[in-house]
Amino acid sequence: MSDAIGVSLLGAGNVGGGVVAALTRGGERYAHHVGRTLELRRALVRDASRPREGIAPHLLTQDVADILADDGTHIVVELMGNEEPAREYIAMALRSGRHVVTANKEVMAKCGTELLALAAEHGVRLLYEASVGGGIPTISPLQRDLLANEITAVTAIINGTTNYMLTEMAQRGAGYEDVLRDAQQLGYAEPDPTADVEGIDASYKLAILCSLAFHVAVTPDDVSRQGIARLSARDFLYASELGYTIKLLASGRMEVGELVATVQPTLIAKDEPLAKVDGVLNAVQIEGDLVGRVLFEGPGAGPAATASAVLADVLDVARDLVAGRTSPVALARPAVRVRPPAEHHSRYYLRVTVSDQAGVLAKIAGALGDNGVSIASMVQFEADVDAGTAELVFTTHRAQGGSLATAITQVAAMEVVREVGNVLPIDGQGGPR
Amino acid sequence: MSDAIGVSLLGAGNVGGGVVAALTRGGERYAHHVGRTLELRRALVRDASRPREGIAPHLLTQDVADILADDGTHIVVELMGNEEPAREYIAMALRSGRHVVTANKEVMAKCGTELLALAAEHGVRLLYEASVGGGIPTISPLQRDLLANEITAVTAIINGTTNYMLTEMAQRGAGYEDVLRDAQQLGYAEPDPTADVEGIDASYKLAILCSLAFHVAVTPDDVSRQGIARLSARDFLYASELGYTIKLLASGRMEVGELVATVQPTLIAKDEPLAKVDGVLNAVQIEGDLVGRVLFEGPGAGPAATASAVLADVLDVARDLVAGRTSPVALARPAVRVRPPAEHHSRYYLRVTVSDQAGVLAKIAGALGDNGVSIASMVQFEADVDAGTAELVFTTHRAQGGSLATAITQVAAMEVVREVGNVLPIDGQGGPR
Repeated sequence: MSDAIGVSLLGAGNVGGGVVAALTRGGERYAHHVGRTLELRRALVRDASRPREGIAPHLLTQDVADILADDGTHIVVELMGNEEPAREYIAMALRSGRHVVTANKEVMAKCGTELLALAAEHGVRLLYEASVGGGIPTISPLQRDLLANEITAVTAIINGTTNYMLTEMAQRGAGYEDVLRDAQQLGYAEPDPTADVEGIDASYKLAILCSLAFHVAVTPDDVSRQGIARLSARDFLYASELGYTIKLLASGRMEVGELVATVQPTLIAKDEPLAKVDGVLNAVQIEGDLVGRVLFEGPGAGPAATASAVLADVLDVARDLVAGRTSPVALARPAVRVRPPAEHHSRYYLRVTVSDQAGVLAKIAGALGDNGVSIASMVQFEADVDAGTAELVFTTHRAQGGSLATAITQVAAMEVVREVGNVLPIDGQGGPR
Repeated sequence: MSDAIGVSLLGAGNVGGGVVAALTRGGERYAHHVGRTLELRRALVRDASRPREGIAPHLLTQDVADILADDGTHIVVELMGNEEPAREYIAMALRSGRHVVTANKEVMAKCGTELLALAAEHGVRLLYEASVGGGIPTISPLQRDLLANEITAVTAIINGTTNYMLTEMAQRGAGYEDVLRDAQQLGYAEPDPTADVEGIDASYKLAILCSLAFHVAVTPDDVSRQGIARLSARDFLYASELGYTIKLLASGRMEVGELVATVQPTLIAKDEPLAKVDGVLNAVQIEGDLVGRVLFEGPGAGPAATASAVLADVLDVARDLVAGRTSPVALARPAVRVRPPAEHHSRYYLRVTVSDQAGVLAKIAGALGDNGVSIASMVQFEADVDAGTAELVFTTHRAQGGSLATAITQVAAMEVVREVGNVLPIDGQGGPR
């Protein structure tokens, strides 16, 4: 038996390649930091006959049992993605007494609470820094650096694909279809972009962040989602005139003991730090009762950045192994009531296309007022003169989502209203008006 | 003996008050996170007869021996500030087998390597997250989250006082003396502002960051300092015309195995993330071979924010105590050659007041060229018509500090040159020209 600490990979694609490359290049440094060498033991792949850069062919296997049977494997690194069989393999590794490091947001979001309990039961650790924000430290700050705080809010841009697209729409005035095509050509968006543009990917990450921030069990089902596909160039133009930009914000907070978790395109004042996070960058802003607001920003994806987070976890476990430390702290994550969107409160942006005739504004204002939604500002933008339509953009004071929805239904039914365009929340951290 | 984990304070001023308040308010949560209660055991103060909010009078003592003699004290939290006797008391606490948490940048910068070795020798931990950046996680990300990286550069705004002052100068066009007076009135600057405006405070923090980032022994003496007192409103105006703002940047990097560490007013392109960090905010940007660039931003001072960091360390130690983990990893921090300013390389900004006559530019350009300093741009700004002077602002390509200094000496000696104004480095992360 070697004196080394053995690491085996489940999955050796892009991120796995990044991990192997970093292990190769940084091996000497890592041995210095840890006190023992890290050794790549096995890698689970779909086709073991295909060579992989940096991995000796005899280390490749198509059977997870080969890895679990290897006594020299102390740490299993899961980089397969998707829910199954990744979840099952993680559970098998934990049961076999292996520490597990994963980058799998879907598994951790959906089954994190159970898997962390399983790890504690078997006296091993399950780490997942790479599951949110690529190389940006996000998990560990919540677990350690900000632990003394009662976290009041987590607000994040945690999907690089959509942030790239929204940045392009804001800066170039381009339309949704155009920027999607560009993003696909650049490799930022998948051929099927659903997981990104519908906010599914972000909802996984937000569930993980909320579980840690608020010490409760949160799954992706607890997150209200709204995608970006309905945003138009005009929304960006109007938002900008009002002093805002539009970001796909992932936001979580506790209100009177209930969770409010949303992923939705949101107007955010241009001078807010999150409004300045552009392109494929990610950023996580955390507010705590002691620390106030802190922001973590950086590249949220990519093999090297993700390897940075994966290996931080591996080194952490390895140092514990060398120091003879075990005893992971079991976590208690009580269930929490999730507040449904109808009970959310926010300021809102509302775009309505109307017949350009007298009395329209009064009617819409009446419907809003009848439902307790108070108008903060209204701007009439020019629209289609030939069609005889005008475009009204309202911002509201803080209103209840359900009341607004009722008002919108009434507005949409009005004969003078051609179309209710986007209804978007306005980030509550302040802002121009 | 109580089952609680005992915490004693050295110093109970502003930050101490913040820690006590947080311990009181968060006590139940902390007990939940740790598995045992945290108990305030003793507090060392200068005058034990003066009551302190949240601290029972019988816990106050004027003698550090009372704390070291208390068997119920497991963690000593040092919040006295300044070098002595804080350093001595920390050493005594470590030798007595107590874990120590400190917010003391001066002690950690000047004596960190020795004290960490002392802690390892006695099998206890010495944590200092609060010493840099208030509540912003900066130490722990370098120790853990980014450990897999070879860190290539640390660039930071880590003095809120000067960042407030420079922000005011940039945004209001105010002069140095004016903003200093304002900062003093607001309580952001001390009556004697030397430690802030001369970059001494920032040099302590940079030394700590460089030690961690580059795994070498760095002290404040290794940091080249230049203060902000000579900056004029004109420098901000000219910098802005050229696409830059001016920040007191603390910057550390390794060049061919040698340390380059500086705290100096630096031109930074307006679209850089650090250029947008305004007011009393702090930010630390770290570049690593894997992660690329990550930025941590937040409030860099204040009792509550500092308490957030102090208590993160306390909770970390407490969880280790509960889990029966000890064995701090001894650290090796080899000495490193520090590259002197004459050997630094940078692009530079250079403001020269000259007699407004023909041939002046050629003379100055000649002196720069003779010393191997290549001009990137030159803009003549209007100056004093009555005095017959004009103001020339040069930016250079990358040049050696020593060569530039020689050229400046020659330029300053020219009869046509009335004054060599500021010579400032330009941040090398890119920028308009």
